[in-house]
Amino acid sequence: MSTFEFPTAIGASDATSITLLGHDLASELLGQVGFAELAYWLVAMRRPTPGELRLFEAVLVALADHGLTPTVIAARMTLTGAPESLQGAVAAGLLGGGSRYLGVTEDCGRFLAETLAAHAAAGNALPADGDTDGWDALALAAVRVRRDAGGYVPGLGHPVHKDVDPRTPVMFGLAETEGVLGPHLRLFDAVGRVHEQVLGRRLPLNGAGVCGAVLADIGLPVDMLRGFALLARTAGLLGHLAEETRNPIGPALYDAVDRSAVYEPPPV
Amino acid sequence: MSTFEFPTAIGASDATSITLLGHDLASELLGQVGFAELAYWLVAMRRPTPGELRLFEAVLVALADHGLTPTVIAARMTLTGAPESLQGAVAAGLLGGGSRYLGVTEDCGRFLAETLAAHAAAGNALPADGDTDGWDALALAAVRVRRDAGGYVPGLGHPVHKDVDPRTPVMFGLAETEGVLGPHLRLFDAVGRVHEQVLGRRLPLNGAGVCGAVLADIGLPVDMLRGFALLARTAGLLGHLAEETRNPIGPALYDAVDRSAVYEPPPV
Amino acid sequence: MSTFEFPTAIGASDATSITLLGHDLASELLGQVGFAELAYWLVAMRRPTPGELRLFEAVLVALADHGLTPTVIAARMTLTGAPESLQGAVAAGLLGGGSRYLGVTEDCGRFLAETLAAHAAAGNALPADGDTDGWDALALAAVRVRRDAGGYVPGLGHPVHKDVDPRTPVMFGLAETEGVLGPHLRLFDAVGRVHEQVLGRRLPLNGAGVCGAVLADIGLPVDMLRGFALLARTAGLLGHLAEETRNPIGPALYDAVDRSAVYEPPPV
Amino acid sequence: MSTFEFPTAIGASDATSITLLGHDLASELLGQVGFAELAYWLVAMRRPTPGELRLFEAVLVALADHGLTPTVIAARMTLTGAPESLQGAVAAGLLGGGSRYLGVTEDCGRFLAETLAAHAAAGNALPADGDTDGWDALALAAVRVRRDAGGYVPGLGHPVHKDVDPRTPVMFGLAETEGVLGPHLRLFDAVGRVHEQVLGRRLPLNGAGVCGAVLADIGLPVDMLRGFALLARTAGLLGHLAEETRNPIGPALYDAVDRSAVYEPPPV
Repeated sequence: MSTFEFPTAIGASDATSITLLGHDLASELLGQVGFAELAYWLVAMRRPTPGELRLFEAVLVALADHGLTPTVIAARMTLTGAPESLQGAVAAGLLGGGSRYLGVTEDCGRFLAETLAAHAAAGNALPADGDTDGWDALALAAVRVRRDAGGYVPGLGHPVHKDVDPRTPVMFGLAETEGVLGPHLRLFDAVGRVHEQVLGRRLPLNGAGVCGAVLADIGLPVDMLRGFALLARTAGLLGHLAEETRNPIGPALYDAVDRSAVYEPPPV
Repeated sequence: MSTFEFPTAIGASDATSITLLGHDLASELLGQVGFAELAYWLVAMRRPTPGELRLFEAVLVALADHGLTPTVIAARMTLTGAPESLQGAVAAGLLGGGSRYLGVTEDCGRFLAETLAAHAAAGNALPADGDTDGWDALALAAVRVRRDAGGYVPGLGHPVHKDVDPRTPVMFGLAETEGVLGPHLRLFDAVGRVHEQVLGRRLPLNGAGVCGAVLADIGLPVDMLRGFALLARTAGLLGHLAEETRNPIGPALYDAVDRSAVYEPPPV
Repeated sequence: MSTFEFPTAIGASDATSITLLGHDLASELLGQVGFAELAYWLVAMRRPTPGELRLFEAVLVALADHGLTPTVIAARMTLTGAPESLQGAVAAGLLGGGSRYLGVTEDCGRFLAETLAAHAAAGNALPADGDTDGWDALALAAVRVRRDAGGYVPGLGHPVHKDVDPRTPVMFGLAETEGVLGPHLRLFDAVGRVHEQVLGRRLPLNGAGVCGAVLADIGLPVDMLRGFALLARTAGLLGHLAEETRNPIGPALYDAVDRSAVYEPPPV
Repeated sequence: MSTFEFPTAIGASDATSITLLGHDLASELLGQVGFAELAYWLVAMRRPTPGELRLFEAVLVALADHGLTPTVIAARMTLTGAPESLQGAVAAGLLGGGSRYLGVTEDCGRFLAETLAAHAAAGNALPADGDTDGWDALALAAVRVRRDAGGYVPGLGHPVHKDVDPRTPVMFGLAETEGVLGPHLRLFDAVGRVHEQVLGRRLPLNGAGVCGAVLADIGLPVDMLRGFALLARTAGLLGHLAEETRNPIGPALYDAVDRSAVYEPPPV
């Protein structure tokens, strides 16, 4: 393996120092960089602006918890069986972060980014910020294409928040305040206005979707958006696993499921 | 399952609102609470003070990355095989966060907390803050007990930082500055002074250990300390997986290992 | 939850008996049903014939191990970090069983099954067993469609076995001997004869692909084919993890990677 | 990395052949070795005798499924959230295979093996096969030591099978028939006769425990016993995940838990 080299830009260390992202960890980062800021930096390979950071923290807070979801149930059940392995319970919880739940953030960011990229690739300029008609036309075309291809339009609808997802207007407001409201959010906003013309019913812009639009607008790579949902969810899982340790519901949940099982033997 | 109830203090939602930790997510938390602050709150069930939060963020930054470690290798190898499942790669990376690596933070926090608890349970008051002799005596007894029981003293020594782990003095300094330097750190400091008398050689107080002492001093439950190491590591893993996506080393690493494999067939 | 019922046909138990797949575990299954037979039965919901079972066992043996692969490296690295959690190391090893490696078996089975289904849905009868021209025409059309859609044809090519994958002819021979050589294998065989006309070069039918064709021919659902690759791989991982316990290479592998890391700090 | 070598006795391959455990995979193993036989061989590094193999298969069948357990719930919940990642659902299911559930098999095998080893280390010969009094004395001493140390005696008691676990007598009978009833089973049998004298109540020898005793008697390393429980469970999980795909209960289970959640907000 003498000729192999594994390049990395993340970090390195020697006997007296640790370097992270080109900075001395001890003297330049500890106490001077926040954790969310570091998480952004590790992926984007640049520090966020203060406005980007505020939105990034808001997204992580928005995505941290959604109650006793399937991923939380999986994590708590895993801790019930293997209480000695907290890492196993966290990992089990993250593994449910796939296409149906945590995937919406990434799907929405990608849908918006691909729409913008295709528009630019066709030689078009983006609409001006206040050109509502221009954004609506772009959104309408994108929703139609997606619908005609048999795909779903990500970021629309929520099983509980039927009219308005309370996170959505707040995230738009924060982005406006911080000056980071960019083309992904503008396009997403327009999707909210026009989708009824194509889909035949009005659905709210959901929180997972707006978080995907925000993450794209603050400069994070679309391929990694699910990763930030996983990071946020890790904090939520720790909260649930700490609660499970203090006040377990796992055994009662197992008992409840077991009592509700109905055995329907197969034809022998 | 009619009689089952699953109590939780984390969160709830209805058609128009989302509640997290007793607060309205949209109007009271988004943009107003940082992500690390929320992670602390979810586990401790109270908000950190500004000093506690600064130390908490510093610990998460300190534990986020340590280069191409076994957990990073596992995560990158997993992404190589299943690039469509970012959650699987993150989970694989976290699963190596067990006793040998990420366990030191928890082991050290627990060792210090148990020593303090046993001291208090025996009816003794803690030494005064500046009573170096008192702390040294307490540390010396604890190190002896651990050594005589055949156990290791967690938080001592580092494979690379043979003399001083550069994170350690900075963390002590930050704790002092922020007024959160408490009994766990004082005891850990004393362990650093006295262990040579018992172990026969001088070892540095390592960064994982000082992080465990800090987390205990800022009021986090010892059972969950490994969880914060996992949270920190999740950010580091995202950095490595983003880099693996941009500039993959996985195939070359596999190739290097494969070429270095030497087949020694068993007796047939 | 009073009105919920969770139906299952797998198993049930009461104070004096355990039922599995409609049979009494103790008196009807233990010592009378093999493990692979049970695994087949659990998924197919029927017992395999002796011929089906022989092929099924052969597939599991064929897929159990491929040396120091990325999934084995991930599992060994995870055991290095968390030796107390064998389940974590096995889980980490399975998580790399995604689209690039273990996915080929499923992709190939699905490609063949979909081709056969589309042929039948268009009202066509399958070629007779010995109608080589008929099978070739069907294969040629399917390869063309796949190629024109920009997709890859699964089951072709191998990084090491450039001419012939030694597993492939043996699996065809076993299927012939046991009388279970069905339409998926016949179509796969034809793909091997005709793909060069479309792709412009001759590639071997690989072992992962032939295993997918076999599993489909012996009546297993295409959606679960990856699952059998995971089951086979679990046995292989146990072999590697037992070896890692007896004769660890994890620390040396970590050391080798760490020494080969080249730090290229990002622009600050 | 030029000087590194990673020795392995599992397998190797070159352009024309694949070697596994010192045999040519294609010509010597496919169709000639069963899957369970291979799994045994991979860990023990020798082929089992026919009697050992029959018991090994019986253990795997006995441990494959236990209904809607926490690990099955975790796996089904994970598939609900990430249906595209079967490997994630299997991994999540295995991660609950820790100390409380799958650990009993390993704990019991280890308890028996350590008792026998300590007896031999003290220079004592084992009792003759039919020397019931001798085995009872050995068991009684071991149970007393475990009890006095505050530990639990593994392999005793079952939440559902209060009097007799139906698997236990069948496994003893199979071991007798096949001539592999060895010291671990004899000692376990004696534990069943004498524990009431120490523990004050009569408990059944459970199925997980007897499986641990069998695995030890047929020559498998105690450190890997949990691994066979994981292998067995993988087959059970595939059965449940196939059923979840055909007839999902995940969404109803989530709904049931969600409806039964009672929010008890923390003090603000």
